[in-house]
Amino acid sequence: MSELLVRAARGERTERPPVWLMRQAGRHLPEYRELREEYDFLEAVTTPEIAAEITLQPWDRYRPDGVVMFSDILTILEPLGFDYHIESGTGPVVESPIADPGDVPQAYAPIQESLDYVGELLDRLDTQVGEETGIIGFAGGPFTLASYAVAGRPTRNHYPLRQFKARHPEAFADLLSIVADAVREFLSYQVDHGADVVQLFDTYAGVLPPEDYRAFIQPLHREILTDIDAPTILFVRNMGGRLDQLAATGADVVSLDWTVEMDMAREQLGDRPVQGNLDPSVLFAGPETVRERTREVIEAAGDQGHILNLGHGVHQDTPIESVEAFVETAKSIEW
Amino acid sequence: MSELLVRAARGERTERPPVWLMRQAGRHLPEYRELREEYDFLEAVTTPEIAAEITLQPWDRYRPDGVVMFSDILTILEPLGFDYHIESGTGPVVESPIADPGDVPQAYAPIQESLDYVGELLDRLDTQVGEETGIIGFAGGPFTLASYAVAGRPTRNHYPLRQFKARHPEAFADLLSIVADAVREFLSYQVDHGADVVQLFDTYAGVLPPEDYRAFIQPLHREILTDIDAPTILFVRNMGGRLDQLAATGADVVSLDWTVEMDMAREQLGDRPVQGNLDPSVLFAGPETVRERTREVIEAAGDQGHILNLGHGVHQDTPIESVEAFVETAKSIEW
Repeated sequence: MSELLVRAARGERTERPPVWLMRQAGRHLPEYRELREEYDFLEAVTTPEIAAEITLQPWDRYRPDGVVMFSDILTILEPLGFDYHIESGTGPVVESPIADPGDVPQAYAPIQESLDYVGELLDRLDTQVGEETGIIGFAGGPFTLASYAVAGRPTRNHYPLRQFKARHPEAFADLLSIVADAVREFLSYQVDHGADVVQLFDTYAGVLPPEDYRAFIQPLHREILTDIDAPTILFVRNMGGRLDQLAATGADVVSLDWTVEMDMAREQLGDRPVQGNLDPSVLFAGPETVRERTREVIEAAGDQGHILNLGHGVHQDTPIESVEAFVETAKSIEW
Repeated sequence: MSELLVRAARGERTERPPVWLMRQAGRHLPEYRELREEYDFLEAVTTPEIAAEITLQPWDRYRPDGVVMFSDILTILEPLGFDYHIESGTGPVVESPIADPGDVPQAYAPIQESLDYVGELLDRLDTQVGEETGIIGFAGGPFTLASYAVAGRPTRNHYPLRQFKARHPEAFADLLSIVADAVREFLSYQVDHGADVVQLFDTYAGVLPPEDYRAFIQPLHREILTDIDAPTILFVRNMGGRLDQLAATGADVVSLDWTVEMDMAREQLGDRPVQGNLDPSVLFAGPETVRERTREVIEAAGDQGHILNLGHGVHQDTPIESVEAFVETAKSIEW
């Protein structure tokens, strides 16, 4: 249990902001790239010993206040009946994506069997990090997962799923609903295995018009998030003018992308805890600029209910010294 | 001169909203696909006779209130010294993108020579459409063009340019500045050749944090737009919570993407004219839904200063009958 991370997620005043980085375990670390020479991505994800080692690499290096389990937002697709693999230069590719309403799954395989490697990973982490470090679990959100299930691969503007929605609104709703059920169970399973905080990454749901987000996605986000026995964080990009829609899901923490101004977010969200939101490209500007811009984010957020993070995942070419400067800036604060 | 289009762009009350569609001349039309079997994309763009024929294809079919010249937002890269071609499956590819600050161009070739085919196209259109139809010119905006000049191709989240900005802020500003100069001259050249309205597509500038948009882009948008002797439209995606930043450029019309709610936009923008903003994926839902959702947009916008459009370009698989329903709905309104 991370005192600092969990307390900030609950909206408490903290002596300094807790800090972690989305995608902190990954390609920007030379020790990760070295390990990945031996194991491919999905092999690393599904082997608890390796996944634990990767999860702890940034902890060994930076000592952030949270370790985010090394995994993939798409793992939950497998119990839903979609096999996928990673294609170099493309990203995830689903073997048999949904073409017709008849392809929408009606059920999913038991999470504790199909995703047992996630439980084992969390069990391992629980024994390896101290009380003061939070273990962060996560899952993809229903829109984001459905986009891969329908398009079969990364797409610009998620057109295949949006077309599917326009042509087959009922099947679209059914698909989101079964995915949401699986995600809810998966996040609870993670908490049972020691996740102190969980983050729902429905990164792409902001591609929907506001009325569609409210009609189709928000009720599912609410269903998922209110069922979890741990603090929850919700990340959806491109929601700048409509952060209140995210708060209305009941998420304990609203994770802000880098295109939102922190003081505007505070205005829109009142005392709802927030996470974020330094532009990850600032990490290419050198440690001095990183420190300056990070302090600006921390000061705009204030001393209550703020988890310092980037507004998006760490880019793979990010210099180590910039990440160090980012974490150290949070740790140097004394409110 | 389009009475209706220009009047709405100037904020006047109109008896019905004028209507056109971004990318209305393009792949969704069978007559376009047929013509493109004979001419490749850049050949069609640079041959005024063919470009005029393509421009008028949607006018022949739908009779929208505006015809948007068939061209490419990247044409202006050539006088700036960047050759490019279109690669199937990738999109535009710039031959020698900017790698170092030293590669930033210091000048550009005369527009009226290097882009003479655009002037010739507009001259032709001027003789071919009647007084009641507006001729719409356009150019890419400085951030969007700079992204291609630096990345050399379409990228996720425009990371190469954002990295370049972080590493070389002065060269970044210099690049945007010279691009903006060329764009300003290009749009004026279009107005000289008969464009009744011009649209600046800085589609991707919303990927910048608000403070960076204000510092780097907004002054350039203002410089470009205030210099044009015709009504101007500004399109930047993902600006939902910060439409006031677009209005502050002095654009006559703020073009809304499909993730903005029209009544929220009206609240944020007061009586500034707006364009948009039906979700283009709605065009896959069948004519009845198209009519219903289009009427909702029109009613939310009201009878003053609204140009009906999509919130993004027409998708290439869009059914003809949906575009017909969209245009007819605008034409059926009687305020």
